[in-house]
Amino acid sequence: MTRAAVLGAGSWGTAFAKVLAEAGTDVTIWARREDVARSIAERHENSDYLSGIALPPSLKATADHRVALEGADFVVLAVPSQTLRHNLETWNPDIPPNATLLSLAKGIESGTLMRMSQVVRQVTGTEASRIAVLSGPNLAREIAEGQPAATVIACTDSTRAMEIQKSCATKYFRPYTNSDVIGCEIGGACKNVIALACGMAAGVGLGENTVASIITRGLAEIIRLGTALGAKPTTLAGLAGVGDLVATCTSPLSRNRSFGERLGRGGSLESAQQATQGQVAEGVKSCTSVRALAASYDVEMPLTDAVHRVCHEGMSVQDAIGLLLGRRIKPE
Amino acid sequence: MTRAAVLGAGSWGTAFAKVLAEAGTDVTIWARREDVARSIAERHENSDYLSGIALPPSLKATADHRVALEGADFVVLAVPSQTLRHNLETWNPDIPPNATLLSLAKGIESGTLMRMSQVVRQVTGTEASRIAVLSGPNLAREIAEGQPAATVIACTDSTRAMEIQKSCATKYFRPYTNSDVIGCEIGGACKNVIALACGMAAGVGLGENTVASIITRGLAEIIRLGTALGAKPTTLAGLAGVGDLVATCTSPLSRNRSFGERLGRGGSLESAQQATQGQVAEGVKSCTSVRALAASYDVEMPLTDAVHRVCHEGMSVQDAIGLLLGRRIKPE
Repeated sequence: MTRAAVLGAGSWGTAFAKVLAEAGTDVTIWARREDVARSIAERHENSDYLSGIALPPSLKATADHRVALEGADFVVLAVPSQTLRHNLETWNPDIPPNATLLSLAKGIESGTLMRMSQVVRQVTGTEASRIAVLSGPNLAREIAEGQPAATVIACTDSTRAMEIQKSCATKYFRPYTNSDVIGCEIGGACKNVIALACGMAAGVGLGENTVASIITRGLAEIIRLGTALGAKPTTLAGLAGVGDLVATCTSPLSRNRSFGERLGRGGSLESAQQATQGQVAEGVKSCTSVRALAASYDVEMPLTDAVHRVCHEGMSVQDAIGLLLGRRIKPE
Repeated sequence: MTRAAVLGAGSWGTAFAKVLAEAGTDVTIWARREDVARSIAERHENSDYLSGIALPPSLKATADHRVALEGADFVVLAVPSQTLRHNLETWNPDIPPNATLLSLAKGIESGTLMRMSQVVRQVTGTEASRIAVLSGPNLAREIAEGQPAATVIACTDSTRAMEIQKSCATKYFRPYTNSDVIGCEIGGACKNVIALACGMAAGVGLGENTVASIITRGLAEIIRLGTALGAKPTTLAGLAGVGDLVATCTSPLSRNRSFGERLGRGGSLESAQQATQGQVAEGVKSCTSVRALAASYDVEMPLTDAVHRVCHEGMSVQDAIGLLLGRRIKPE
């Protein structure tokens, strides 16, 4: 692949554009805001989303998606999951035919309960073999700092997965290929909800044993949902499942974990949101769609359900944890 | 079961004896040292291994194993894995016939490469249906403090597993039963080695993405070894696998993680040992036997191998990490 467009200049889109540029790929990043595009193009910094990180001068930036997409044979979708459809509808006429589409967005679309690759397919009409997803333990700031990280690129077409792999492999960023698109997407969509639960437990003062148990039971319910949808359990035991889950649930850099901690310490949703620059943690939104998707496949997800009750049905964190830990003794 | 003997009064043996007593089981704990036994019996505290924790007055203590074993129908083995055989040889004549034996020891015996339940069986001649193991995300101090925790009790005889479950279930300690003894033991034996690797990475300054990747790749090699030995992958995706691994690899209370961090910051084995009251972390010893067991089944364990090179072959932490992260790009 010779020319990449990264659509979305949040922290992960910007960090991934940096990786691509440093892997030798010709990249243009699109930012919704003119000032962000200018900051990247002129000062080689995205001060709003990755302050203090020097971006490669070879990385081009624009606020006009047509400029980014012109001649691109590799299009990276790096906008929040709930805005992907709307953005894609705007971009679609300008996406070059035969381009490879790579989704970095993690989530299940509200209402339709679609995975991101399904949204991409429905809006653009692209065949599945040209749609890929990327997921793994990838805290954006660490990757922007050049810390070593591994990730998974999943595509039903393994040749295409390997092309993407080559376009973004650097000394510090190591992509592995996988054909299990569903598994990669489910891992990424569910982990933020579990991270909220871990944060809540830590916030009320529970220890590492509890957090590790929540991660384990969270993994079990993610695997149940994934296999019901056709994912391979091995994918969910790998970097896009366990790896991403552990990083998100244990890192102080994780927004969802910190948000859950604030709720666990007795803060309201509103006060937790104020403390995070007005942003609601992704898991607060995605617990609703993940829960609905699980229900439609008759899959039990007690942790996701408990998080939903706290975030949207007024249950206290204490009661939710009591509900989870109070389950009667039984076989594992 | 009506009368339990807990043999071993380190932090985990003491915490588990406390759990048993609080679950209503009649318990006597045996301590190798007379002063420790006296401290538990008279002051209801084990100041050397669990300082500041009030033990139940109903918990009896002795330094004479015959007193502890007299009339016991439930014997808990809570000594370090490499001393289990020698201790068992001493205790065996006094273990009541038909007693249930539960191993809390985690490790692979040097030389014989046996799991702990195999050592128990060989030394005592007890049939497999009376031997059980307990493993999970169980940092001893948190459990002694009454923090909620879950664990797995594995026995080929499910009725016996349920009896043990009842004897130690409390409001804060939730045991789940499982028939996969091998899986439980392999998870417990291997996790300390991976925790050393996580500590080394953190010690040289690598971030959460790397630690999460190490945990994931560690889990993959543990599952490879486990399945080669006949364990079920689902056990290793559960509390005794992922759960214990995550707790041990991420907790600041974990001795192996901290020991690895000291090595990663450039300390020698000797200086790391001095900083931990002269104790060598369990993973430093077990990496050798885990590696030998894996080799005898032709299973690749690159992380365990790297830890072994650092601890016993003079390789620098930097070189070991380069070796691991430098593997060429390929499918997951």
